[in-house]
Amino acid sequence: MAELITIDDPADPRLADYTDLTDVELRRRREPAEGLFIAEGEKVIRRALEAGYAMRSMLLSAKWIDAMRDVIDEAPAPVYAVDPALAERVTGYHVHRGALASMAREPLPEATEVLATARRVAILEAVNDHTNIGAAFRSAAALGMDAVLLSPDCADPLYRRSVKVSMGAVFSVPYARLTTWPRDLTQVREAGFTLLALTPDAKATSIDEAAPHRLERAALLLGAEGNGLTRHALAAADAWVRIPMAHGVDSLNVAAAAAVAFYAVTTGRPTA
Amino acid sequence: MAELITIDDPADPRLADYTDLTDVELRRRREPAEGLFIAEGEKVIRRALEAGYAMRSMLLSAKWIDAMRDVIDEAPAPVYAVDPALAERVTGYHVHRGALASMAREPLPEATEVLATARRVAILEAVNDHTNIGAAFRSAAALGMDAVLLSPDCADPLYRRSVKVSMGAVFSVPYARLTTWPRDLTQVREAGFTLLALTPDAKATSIDEAAPHRLERAALLLGAEGNGLTRHALAAADAWVRIPMAHGVDSLNVAAAAAVAFYAVTTGRPTA
Repeated sequence: MAELITIDDPADPRLADYTDLTDVELRRRREPAEGLFIAEGEKVIRRALEAGYAMRSMLLSAKWIDAMRDVIDEAPAPVYAVDPALAERVTGYHVHRGALASMAREPLPEATEVLATARRVAILEAVNDHTNIGAAFRSAAALGMDAVLLSPDCADPLYRRSVKVSMGAVFSVPYARLTTWPRDLTQVREAGFTLLALTPDAKATSIDEAAPHRLERAALLLGAEGNGLTRHALAAADAWVRIPMAHGVDSLNVAAAAAVAFYAVTTGRPTA
Repeated sequence: MAELITIDDPADPRLADYTDLTDVELRRRREPAEGLFIAEGEKVIRRALEAGYAMRSMLLSAKWIDAMRDVIDEAPAPVYAVDPALAERVTGYHVHRGALASMAREPLPEATEVLATARRVAILEAVNDHTNIGAAFRSAAALGMDAVLLSPDCADPLYRRSVKVSMGAVFSVPYARLTTWPRDLTQVREAGFTLLALTPDAKATSIDEAAPHRLERAALLLGAEGNGLTRHALAAADAWVRIPMAHGVDSLNVAAAAAVAFYAVTTGRPTA
């Protein structure tokens, strides 16, 4: 059973993992460097634990102790009970979900490792917005993508906001980061994948006609909201696919486009 | 050509259409009562005009006059040039898109009128969030839904934020509001539509197996984020369909779910 420790000094060094959570730039540097990430709220904390991440510590306001009793009992890490005002002072915001956990990062697998067992892969290029990364993971997980690969400039899936928007899906879909872009896409092709670039370009094949669910191994390349895929990524693809558009609309938002593309590439696939 | 009128008094009654735009409750009452809606930004204003809405007036900061010159030249309505500080004082926020137009609402068509020529209809129940309404319209338009029907408690598609999130798609998809819910769904069935309720319920048929794109006329019932469809709406449907979920994820967000369902129901449909 974990120790339940009441802390009333906001400068207590045991709270260091939780300081200045609203300072995005600071946290983006600190968290990977210190090997931690923050899980927020009961559901996300439970999902991180179920996925096998080790807890460094947990910070709770008193009224969450009962709801989290079983987690506290099994946590091999200190649990800090604080009052909401102190939590706000330390973190920089009103922690209305009442529970935060600092979790230990795991080393990311290599792309080749992730690709070995996957048949449906999403590859995100330059998605540097934490909300969009989280939304993409939630849809990728829900719609049965087996893995996600990230270009070097994608945002961190374990950043607090990404984790929250994904509803913890970042814990359940294996992912890796490519280091040389777009050159490392050759690893994907060498693993037997057909590389499909999602683009509104009129030269692309309509995704329903392309019937990507019939491919043995399909990797779907998606760009960021607004700019879409770079020329380099488009050039590296085996084929271009587009979602057919009606009513003179030029695009879907990136979360809707990703969901449709994931559905098109996974549904109808033969069960393994 | 429109008059270009410089105004430097924030209390000028000619600016009445633009006052307190950030007061959602006030604007929700005022705009339908006064028969107006606000289009924000160059692109959305142009789309409202293209869709045939009449302009009551336009409010611009000086640097937008050149970009909007052709619109000003053709606008049969006064155009008010104001400085950004005055625009902010009147509207209550910094109008960073620099251009607002007050447009006249049109009477909404009856549901039966909208249904007469449609083959793919989205029916939204209790989607009372302006962002979600806008997102649903954007996806419905992009993915080729012919019309949208709204339950009585859905948010206003012409509210400023709905219009903006939809990127103007609320102007291009015909829509109507049902008055008695869910009883008016019988109008949809009488028009020859099969009513499909989208639900995560395990008793529902997987949407790919249901193959709704083969239906001659399909109406897709969608509920709000969180609660989903009410019992009444579920009971009124001809069939339940669900999006297959993987990785233990229990749901997609409402925009992603709507996009997938619209794609499933429109794609592969025989061209009319």
